[in-house]
Amino acid sequence: MENFVYIIPVLGIIGLLTMYLKAKWVSKQDAGDATMSELAGYIANGAMAFLRAEWKILGYFVIIASILLAWSGSVVETSSPIIAISFIIGAVFSATAGYIGMNIATKANVRTTQAARTSLPQALKVSFTGGSVMGLGVAGLAVLGIGSLFIFFYTMYVVNTGADVNGKMMEKALEVLAGFSLGAESIALFARVGGGIYTKAADVGADLVGKVEAGIPEDDVRNPATIADNVGDNVGDVAGMGADLFGSYVATILATMVLGREIVSQDNFGGIAPILLPMVIAGVGLLFSIVGMLFVKVKGEDGDVQKALNMGNWSSIVFTAIASFFIVNWMLPDTAMNIRGFEFTKMNVFCAIILGLVVGTLMSAITEYYTAMGKRPVQSIVNQSSTGHATNIIGGLSVGMESTAAPMLVLAAGIYGSYYFAGLYGVAIAAAGMMATTAMQLAIDAFGPIADNAGGIAEMSGLPKEVRNRTDNLDAVGNTTAATGKGFAIASAALTSLALFAAFVGVAGISHIDIYKADVLAGLFVGGMIPFIFSSLAIAAVGRAAMDMVNEVRRQFREIPGIMEYKAKPEYEKCVAISTEASIREMVAPGAIALIVPIIVGFTFGPEVLGGLLAGVTVSGVLLGMFMNNAGGAWDNAKKSFEKGAVINGETFYKGSEPHKASVTGDTVGDPFKDTSGPSMNILIKLMSIVSLIIAPHIAVNEGHGAQMMNGGDKIECMMDCCKTMNGDAEHNMNYCKNFTAATGVKCEMDENGQCMIDSTDCARLISEGKMDAKSCEMVNGKCKMSTEACQKMMENKAE
Amino acid sequence: MENFVYIIPVLGIIGLLTMYLKAKWVSKQDAGDATMSELAGYIANGAMAFLRAEWKILGYFVIIASILLAWSGSVVETSSPIIAISFIIGAVFSATAGYIGMNIATKANVRTTQAARTSLPQALKVSFTGGSVMGLGVAGLAVLGIGSLFIFFYTMYVVNTGADVNGKMMEKALEVLAGFSLGAESIALFARVGGGIYTKAADVGADLVGKVEAGIPEDDVRNPATIADNVGDNVGDVAGMGADLFGSYVATILATMVLGREIVSQDNFGGIAPILLPMVIAGVGLLFSIVGMLFVKVKGEDGDVQKALNMGNWSSIVFTAIASFFIVNWMLPDTAMNIRGFEFTKMNVFCAIILGLVVGTLMSAITEYYTAMGKRPVQSIVNQSSTGHATNIIGGLSVGMESTAAPMLVLAAGIYGSYYFAGLYGVAIAAAGMMATTAMQLAIDAFGPIADNAGGIAEMSGLPKEVRNRTDNLDAVGNTTAATGKGFAIASAALTSLALFAAFVGVAGISHIDIYKADVLAGLFVGGMIPFIFSSLAIAAVGRAAMDMVNEVRRQFREIPGIMEYKAKPEYEKCVAISTEASIREMVAPGAIALIVPIIVGFTFGPEVLGGLLAGVTVSGVLLGMFMNNAGGAWDNAKKSFEKGAVINGETFYKGSEPHKASVTGDTVGDPFKDTSGPSMNILIKLMSIVSLIIAPHIAVNEGHGAQMMNGGDKIECMMDCCKTMNGDAEHNMNYCKNFTAATGVKCEMDENGQCMIDSTDCARLISEGKMDAKSCEMVNGKCKMSTEACQKMMENKAE
Repeated sequence: MENFVYIIPVLGIIGLLTMYLKAKWVSKQDAGDATMSELAGYIANGAMAFLRAEWKILGYFVIIASILLAWSGSVVETSSPIIAISFIIGAVFSATAGYIGMNIATKANVRTTQAARTSLPQALKVSFTGGSVMGLGVAGLAVLGIGSLFIFFYTMYVVNTGADVNGKMMEKALEVLAGFSLGAESIALFARVGGGIYTKAADVGADLVGKVEAGIPEDDVRNPATIADNVGDNVGDVAGMGADLFGSYVATILATMVLGREIVSQDNFGGIAPILLPMVIAGVGLLFSIVGMLFVKVKGEDGDVQKALNMGNWSSIVFTAIASFFIVNWMLPDTAMNIRGFEFTKMNVFCAIILGLVVGTLMSAITEYYTAMGKRPVQSIVNQSSTGHATNIIGGLSVGMESTAAPMLVLAAGIYGSYYFAGLYGVAIAAAGMMATTAMQLAIDAFGPIADNAGGIAEMSGLPKEVRNRTDNLDAVGNTTAATGKGFAIASAALTSLALFAAFVGVAGISHIDIYKADVLAGLFVGGMIPFIFSSLAIAAVGRAAMDMVNEVRRQFREIPGIMEYKAKPEYEKCVAISTEASIREMVAPGAIALIVPIIVGFTFGPEVLGGLLAGVTVSGVLLGMFMNNAGGAWDNAKKSFEKGAVINGETFYKGSEPHKASVTGDTVGDPFKDTSGPSMNILIKLMSIVSLIIAPHIAVNEGHGAQMMNGGDKIECMMDCCKTMNGDAEHNMNYCKNFTAATGVKCEMDENGQCMIDSTDCARLISEGKMDAKSCEMVNGKCKMSTEACQKMMENKAE
Repeated sequence: MENFVYIIPVLGIIGLLTMYLKAKWVSKQDAGDATMSELAGYIANGAMAFLRAEWKILGYFVIIASILLAWSGSVVETSSPIIAISFIIGAVFSATAGYIGMNIATKANVRTTQAARTSLPQALKVSFTGGSVMGLGVAGLAVLGIGSLFIFFYTMYVVNTGADVNGKMMEKALEVLAGFSLGAESIALFARVGGGIYTKAADVGADLVGKVEAGIPEDDVRNPATIADNVGDNVGDVAGMGADLFGSYVATILATMVLGREIVSQDNFGGIAPILLPMVIAGVGLLFSIVGMLFVKVKGEDGDVQKALNMGNWSSIVFTAIASFFIVNWMLPDTAMNIRGFEFTKMNVFCAIILGLVVGTLMSAITEYYTAMGKRPVQSIVNQSSTGHATNIIGGLSVGMESTAAPMLVLAAGIYGSYYFAGLYGVAIAAAGMMATTAMQLAIDAFGPIADNAGGIAEMSGLPKEVRNRTDNLDAVGNTTAATGKGFAIASAALTSLALFAAFVGVAGISHIDIYKADVLAGLFVGGMIPFIFSSLAIAAVGRAAMDMVNEVRRQFREIPGIMEYKAKPEYEKCVAISTEASIREMVAPGAIALIVPIIVGFTFGPEVLGGLLAGVTVSGVLLGMFMNNAGGAWDNAKKSFEKGAVINGETFYKGSEPHKASVTGDTVGDPFKDTSGPSMNILIKLMSIVSLIIAPHIAVNEGHGAQMMNGGDKIECMMDCCKTMNGDAEHNMNYCKNFTAATGVKCEMDENGQCMIDSTDCARLISEGKMDAKSCEMVNGKCKMSTEACQKMMENKAE
C-alpha cells in the first residue's frame, strides 16, 4: 500500500487536465464583434498590467523571505533550508492559480456576453465553465503541489532514513512542507488585499463621479474609470479569491497532516493514514466536484440558475460525504487512535467530517439569510433607507453586527462537537471535509464576477436590453453565491486556524494557553486589536485610492472635451494606472502586520503569549470578517431591491428615488467591507497562525522539541513527567532513571536537561503490550509524557 | 486603629454635604424669563416622566432579582439571603445618583443660559457647579454606601464571630457586599441603554425632519421633537452616565477588596489594610476632587475653558497621587505581601496605582487625539466628506477602527505592568487609582450636557447671538471632555473586569482558564460575539425609535397648521412619550443578555468555560466600545469643523455645503455609536463579570470553596497539593497526614474528599516563622496550596 500515496498527485493532475479541456472549450467560443473585443482587450490588458506590477513587488518579497526562511531552517533541527524551496513553490503555485483564474475570466467574460445574445442556458454554460476552470485550477494545483511535495519530503526524511513515522523526522518533513502553505498564504494575503483595494477604489471612484455626479449609468463607456472597474472584478474577485481559497485549502490540509503525525496508527499505509487522509479526501472532493459540475445547467430562458448551481454544489458535497465514509473506513485502523490523550475511533473521524460539512452548510445558509433580497434583514435596511442616508447606514451596521450571532453559535458548537468526536484531529479534519469541494465552491464563486463583467461589456458595447437582462439574471445569482461563499470561507478559516493553533501548541512545546496569566491576557487583547487596525488600513486605503480616482475622472470630464457626446475617448489607462499603483502601495502595511507581529511577539514574550495573541486575532477576525461581509452584502442587495421596485410602508420606490439614493450610499460603504477588508480576515487569521507554526521550533520552551533536539539522536524521545518535578536535581533524576530501569527493564536515560527519557519505540511497545495505559502517556511531538502517578504505578507493578 | 474604618463613610458624607451646598447655590441662581422657565419646565417634566417610567419597570426587576438572590444566597455557605438587601440598596443608590444628576442638570441648564446673558465666567461657574453636584453625589453615595455596608457586614460576619480576616467569613462578607455592586451595575445598564436609546432616538428624529427636511435650525422651538431632544441630553448623558460611573466606581472598589482578602497582611488595621485601601483611596480622591473643583474658573470672555477644566482635573489627580503614596506607606505592612503566589511590597502597590493613573491619562489623550477637531483623524473625515456621504462614512469607520490600536497597546502594557508590580491585586488597585477622582471626572463630563441644554434653551427662547456663542463655547469643550471621559471609562472598565475576572477565578476554585481546551475556546468565541449582538440590538432600537419619531414630527407638521409660522405650538409631549416608551421597551433585550448569558453558560458548562466567555466579552467589548465611541466622536467633530469653515484641498466649506451635508450623515450614524451602544460596553463587560462572581460559589469546582465548605468549620482551610495526586487513595493520604504531623508537628487532618488539610492559622504561622516559603504556598481563597516539592522538602527538613 506504500505506493498508494501516488494517487494523490494523480488526482491533482486529473483536475488540471479537466481544467485544460474546459479552458480550451471556452477559448473556442465566439468572442463577439469588434467593439466587444476591443473592450475585452482593455480589460485583459489592465488585468495583466496589475498582475505584472504585483508580481514584481511580490518577487522581491519572496526572495527576501525565502533567504530568511533558509537561514532559519538551518538553525533548528526539525527544519531545513529546503523550507525556502517549499515556500517558493507555494508562492509560485498560488500566483499561478490567480493567473489561471484571471486569464480564463478575461476570456470568458466577453464570450458570456456573446452567448447571452443567443440564450440564457448558453450564457450560463460559458460563464460557469469559466468559473470551473478557476475552481479546478486552484484545487488541482493544491492537490498536486502538496501531494508531490509530501511524497518528496516523506521519502527524503523518513523512508530513506528509516525513521519513525510518528517521530522527529516526520515532524521535520511536515515543517518543511509548511513552507508551501506559508508561500501560498502570503501571496494570497497580498493578492486579496491588493486586489480588494484595486477593485473597490475603481468601483467607488467610478460610481461616485459617473453615476452620482455625471448621471450616466454603471459601466457606461464614457466613464474613464469603467475599464478599471471591470479590471477590478477580475483582479479582486477572481485572482484575489483564487489565491485566497488556494491558501485556505492548503493550510487546512497541512494543519490536519501536522496533527495526524501525532497519532500512532496501526494501518496498512505504514502508519501514516491519519496524515494521508486529508489529502485523499481533498483529491476525491476534487473528483466529485468535476462530477457535480455536470449538473449545472438550465433548460430555457426562465430556468432557475440558482437551483442549477445548488444542484451541482449539493451533489458534489453528498458524493464526497458518502465517499469519505468508505475512505475513512478503509484507511484508518480499526483500533482506537489517540491524540494528546484524547481517544477516538475511525467512525468518530467520519462524524467530525460530516459535522464540518454541516457547519459549512449552516454558515452558508445563515449568511444567505442575512444578505438575501426580500428577507427580514435586507428589508429592514430598505425600510430605513426611507429616512435617509444615515438611517440606511445605521440599519446596515446593525444587521452586520446581528449577523455574527448565529454563525458564532454554530461555530462554537462545531468546535465543541468536532473535538468531542476526535479531539484536535477532529477539529482539523472537520475543516478539511468542509473544504473538500473547494473546486466546486470556487467555480460557483468565480462565475459571479464573470457574469458581472459580461454585463459590463454588454452595457459598454450598447447591446440590446435582453442581453443585459440575461447577464443581470446571472449576476444577481452571483451576488448570493458570493455571500454564501464568504460564509463558507470564514467558517473554514476559523476551523483551520484552530487546527493550526493546535499544531503550533504541539510544536512549541506548551501544554496550555492560560488567559488567567496577565501576559497571556495582554496578548489576547493585542491580538483582538490586530483585525481592527488591519481593516482600518485596508478601508482607509480604498478611501484614499477612490478619492484619487474621483479626482482623475473629474479631471478627464473637465479637460477632455467631447467625452459626454461619445466624440472623444476617455483615457482608461490612466485610471487603470491609479488603481494599480494605489493597490500595490497600500497592500504593504497590512501585509507586514500579519507577517511581522507574530514573529515579534513570539520571540519577545514566548509561545504562550503568542498563543493568546493568536486566539485574540482569530476571535476578533472571525467576528469582524462576518460583520463586514454580511453588512456589505446586505447593503448591496438593499440597493438592488430598488431596481425592481422596493415597497416601503405600502409605497413602491424605484431607482432614482430618495430612498434609492440612500441605499447607494450604503452600498458604497459596504464595498470595501465586503470585498476588501472582510474577506482579508480569513487570510489574516490563517497567515498569522502559519507564521507562528513556522517559528514555533525557534521559540519552543523546555519541553518542546527545541530543547530535546539537543540529544542529537532520533531514539530518545520519550520524556517522563515524573522526574520533571525534580528538574535540575541531576543526582536524584539519575537515581530515578536507574531505579526505573531496574524495576521495569525498560532503558531509561538522562538528557542534558536532567530529565529522564524512554525510547519512543519502547513507549509504543509498552502501550501495545498493555503494560502502559495509552491515556497516561500523552503523545506530544512523538514524545511520551507520563504522569507521575502512571510511572510510579508502573514501577510498583514491575516490582511486585 | 480598628475604628479607622469609620473614616470611609465620613468621607462620603463630606462629599454629600459639599454637594448639598453646591446644589443650593445653583438653585438660588436666576432662572431667567417666563419663556425660558416654560421651556425648562417642559424639559424637567419630560425627564421626570422618563425616570418614573423607567423606575416602574426597574422596580419589578429589582423585586424579582432580589427574591432570586435571596434564595440563591441561602443555598451556599459563603453567601446569605442578606445579599438581596445589599442588592436593593445598590439599586436604590444608583437610581438616586441618576436622579440627583438629572434634577440638578434640569435646574442648572436654564440658569446657565441666564448666566450666559451676563458673562462666560459666570456661565461656566453655573454649569460646572451643576456638574460638580452630580460628581459629588455619585462619588459620595458610592463611598458612603460601600463603606457603611462593609463596616456592617464585616462586623456581623467577621468581628462578631472572631473569624479569620483572610478566611471564609470575610469571603462571605464580601460576597454579600457584591450584591451592592450588582444592584448598582444592573441599574446602570438599564439607565445607560434606556437613556442612550431615548436621547439618540430624539436627537436623530429631531435632526432628520427638522434640520434636513424642514430646514429649521437645531433646537428650534417649532420642532415638535426638540423638547424630547433636550430631555434626552438629561436622561442619557446625565442620568445614564451618572448611574454608569456609579457602577464602575463601586465595581472597581469591590473587585480590589475581594482580591485584597486573599492577602495575609501584618498591618495595624487588624490585617484588613489591603481590603480597606481601595475605599480609603476613593474617599481621599473624593476629597481632592472637591479641592480641584476650586481651580475651575476663567477670568474673562476669552478665557480658556478647556484649560480651566484641565487645571481642576490635573490638580485633583496629582494631589490624589501624592496622597496615595502616604496612605499606602502608612496602611500596608512593611513585610512582603503575597497574592496567589505573587510576592510584592507596598511600594509595588503604589507603583501600580501610579501606573493606573498613567494608563487612564494616556487613554484620555489618545481618545482626544482621535476625536479632536484639527487633528489628522478628524481632518481625514472632513476631507473625505468632499466626495460624499459614503466616503465620509468609510472615513469614520476607518478612523474608529484605527483608534483601537494605541489604546489596546497601552491597556495591554497596563495589565502587564500592574501585574508585574503587584500581581492581580496590582491590576485591581491600578483601576481603583484610576477611578479615584471620579467625582472630578464626572463633574467635567456632566458639565457638557448642561451647557448643551443651556444652548438649546437660548436658541428656543430666541436670546441674542452672544448668549448662544457663550454656550457654544462651553458646549464645544464639553464634546472633547465627553470623548476623553469615555476613554477613561473604558480603560477603567477593562481593568475592573480583569480584577473581577481574577476574583471570579478565585471564588470558582479554578486555577487557570486554558483556551487550548475546545470548550473554553468555544466559550471565548461566543463571548466575543455578545458585544456585537448587544450593540446591534441597541443600534437597531435607536433606528426604530428614530423612525417613529420622524413619522410623528412629519405628522405634526402636516396636521397642525401654523407651526411653521409660530402660530401653533407643537405637541411636544407626544414626542417625549414616543422616546420614553421606545427606550423602556427596547432596553429589556440587551439587558437580559448581559444578565442571563453568564448564568446559563456557568451552570451548563462550568466555571472555566464561563471564564473563557468573560475573556471574549471583555476583549471584544473593549474593542467595539472604543471603535464606536471614537468613530462617533470623530464624526461629530468632523461635522462641527464645518461650522467655522473647513478647509479641503485649499477650498473652504461652510454649513449647508455638500461636504457639510455628508458630514451630517456621519454625525447621525455616530450618534447611537457614541451615546448608546459604545458607552454601554463598559457596563456590559463589568455586569457580566459581576454576575459571574455572584454565581461563582454555586458553580465552583472541587478545589473551590464550594466543596471545602462541606468541612463545616472555619478552621480547616489549608489544602496541600502534595496529597492531591493520590486523591481518592484514602489510606495513603491518611498515612501521609500522620507522617506530616509527626515530621513537622503541625496538625494535619483529612477531609471528606480524602485530601489532607492543615489549619490556615498554622499555615500563616509557618510562613511568618520562615518555615514555609510563601512562594511555595499559593494562596487561593485563603487556602494554601503547596507544591509536592515544597511539602516534601518541609518533611525532610523537619525530619533532619
